[in-house]
Amino acid sequence: MALDLDVGLERVVAAATRLSDVQGEHGRLTIAGFPAEEVAPRATFEEMVYLLWNDHLPNSEQLAEFQARLAGYRSIPEHTVTLLRSAAERQTNPMDALRMGLSSLDVVADDPWEQAASIVSQTATIVAAFLRLRAGEDPVSPDPELSHAVDFLRMVGGEVPDPARVRALETYLNTVSDHGLNASTFAARVIVATESDLVSAITGAVGALKGPLHGGAPGPALDMVFEIAELERAEPYLRSKLERGERLMGFGHRVYKVRDPRADILAQATLRLYAGGAGDQHLYEMATGVEQVALRLLEEYKPGRNLQTNVEYYTALLLHCLGFSSDDFTPIFAVGRVAGWLAHCQEQLETGRLIRPSCQYIGEHDRAWVPRSDRGW
Amino acid sequence: MALDLDVGLERVVAAATRLSDVQGEHGRLTIAGFPAEEVAPRATFEEMVYLLWNDHLPNSEQLAEFQARLAGYRSIPEHTVTLLRSAAERQTNPMDALRMGLSSLDVVADDPWEQAASIVSQTATIVAAFLRLRAGEDPVSPDPELSHAVDFLRMVGGEVPDPARVRALETYLNTVSDHGLNASTFAARVIVATESDLVSAITGAVGALKGPLHGGAPGPALDMVFEIAELERAEPYLRSKLERGERLMGFGHRVYKVRDPRADILAQATLRLYAGGAGDQHLYEMATGVEQVALRLLEEYKPGRNLQTNVEYYTALLLHCLGFSSDDFTPIFAVGRVAGWLAHCQEQLETGRLIRPSCQYIGEHDRAWVPRSDRGW
Repeated sequence: MALDLDVGLERVVAAATRLSDVQGEHGRLTIAGFPAEEVAPRATFEEMVYLLWNDHLPNSEQLAEFQARLAGYRSIPEHTVTLLRSAAERQTNPMDALRMGLSSLDVVADDPWEQAASIVSQTATIVAAFLRLRAGEDPVSPDPELSHAVDFLRMVGGEVPDPARVRALETYLNTVSDHGLNASTFAARVIVATESDLVSAITGAVGALKGPLHGGAPGPALDMVFEIAELERAEPYLRSKLERGERLMGFGHRVYKVRDPRADILAQATLRLYAGGAGDQHLYEMATGVEQVALRLLEEYKPGRNLQTNVEYYTALLLHCLGFSSDDFTPIFAVGRVAGWLAHCQEQLETGRLIRPSCQYIGEHDRAWVPRSDRGW
Repeated sequence: MALDLDVGLERVVAAATRLSDVQGEHGRLTIAGFPAEEVAPRATFEEMVYLLWNDHLPNSEQLAEFQARLAGYRSIPEHTVTLLRSAAERQTNPMDALRMGLSSLDVVADDPWEQAASIVSQTATIVAAFLRLRAGEDPVSPDPELSHAVDFLRMVGGEVPDPARVRALETYLNTVSDHGLNASTFAARVIVATESDLVSAITGAVGALKGPLHGGAPGPALDMVFEIAELERAEPYLRSKLERGERLMGFGHRVYKVRDPRADILAQATLRLYAGGAGDQHLYEMATGVEQVALRLLEEYKPGRNLQTNVEYYTALLLHCLGFSSDDFTPIFAVGRVAGWLAHCQEQLETGRLIRPSCQYIGEHDRAWVPRSDRGW
């Protein structure tokens, strides 16, 4: 049987999923049956996780039970804190620290849904603890009376956050909670398909998410706005970038050929956040101003390409307003995406199938051993 | 474009590789251009790693330089030892401990080959340190004057091993150093294809290797021999297993339809080891006797299927003779396979391609939000 080599697997459908549907040509994203813009701004993060895992919204009793269950798992083991402390002292990259922290969690064999609940909770705690430790402060212990998003912001900042910030964070986490079969999700599925465990699968997914080709790194979009600094500099700055043939970070997407629906959701969430007085108003005005100039120039330099603001642009603005620095955007992305990774793992386990493609051998055959003393090359 | 769903990706060729060629119908395994039986019993482990990474055997100067380079990386960081110590206290599964240990290593950004050298070396040190800690003993510090295999056995057992044991271990590590695009190797390629780092990729591969569907877990084959205990019990024991329709662990292989060439290599290595007086002679005679009975009964119960002794059977016997317990066989497998994983990572990085298959959405669309108070289900 002769098979074609397909290095990127673009022509392959590797999973059937009910978790999300990315319709790039139409700018539509469905998450667990809902248009993303219908569910992301309304659900609490716990509701979103429940929805992904159970394919329906929880009633009040189910939600209360689920929220308590997640909250009960929020503490991380002492050995994980020790590991993160030492990583912070070595100024470890936050994605490496997250990989170390997650990988250090013990595997609980009996019930994969319990393990999944603990991983969702502890991913947030690991990120928060590492940010504290890196700033030279002790981690803040979880408060299981608080919701996931409230407690995450409290464990990072030390204070119970106001509701506007919580809503903005939940909208963000929900928006990025799942997005088809991207590379990190596929990595999780490949690992768990061997019937390995969820800690191993999520650790692998975090490793894949870190890669620059994965996409979804929102830091550079904001860095560009910082570099422009004053709105009147936007046009010459962007024009010179486009003249040099450079990409504008935060615009255009591999899959979305019209506006990324996630960008709209996050643009509105960000508007509400800054309108409520949070964050650096000058930066917000700068960023929205730069966006308008960028869209106008992209239409001028790349007519018909319809390059639109992507999810990274407003992710950067939203997370910056919540007090996070560019380095931390990808770990916080993981705090949301871990919900989808775990849902995909469960779907994969239900298939009972190993993922094991073939390879084509292009090397030699029948080489003969040469004793060490005869290797005169 | 309508695409067929292929959950296991069996019909897909996902990589071109010069690293190994598995010809299951012919019982042939080529590693880096050499028949496995030509190279595995002759090469030192360092030679094998060099060969996989450079596609030629090293001359004496290259070998000396490479051996010194690997040896120079053999020490593991103090925070990794602390983590392993705590894992040992919690009686963590050795594969989980290996995942924790590897994931805790720092990423060195500049030269992926240097990072690869450190990972090969430190995988062995992590396994050795964990086995010591689990036994309630302190880890033995590496001795960079010794070769990889010598020092691994010394770090496990506390003493410089005799050459017969070293040769047996090297033959084993070389034999399992690569084997096409299995699930763990594919996991490593998926992760590194995002241009993430080698620590992340190898951590993911270890996670996949742990899964029971991955195959290559040699423990159960030996457990069967222990359970039989006396040779005269072999026939009734095996007959009753076959009557119940059970699989005989250590026989038959998904890919190899004739004798697995690795079984032959390891059978000979094991014979030499026991013939030299090492290990439990009774067990060796038992195991080879059980093998003969099993092959005869398999031909009787499954005529024409040609079920042969697989690599697991002699792996178990060889590693047992070297003093390892069944629980540790898979981590030691990783000590060898890490060479192939890293070689595949380099091949994948050279393609510059992300691995990102599609998925087929089978969920609903356009669900409408229901406020919490209205969820009367």
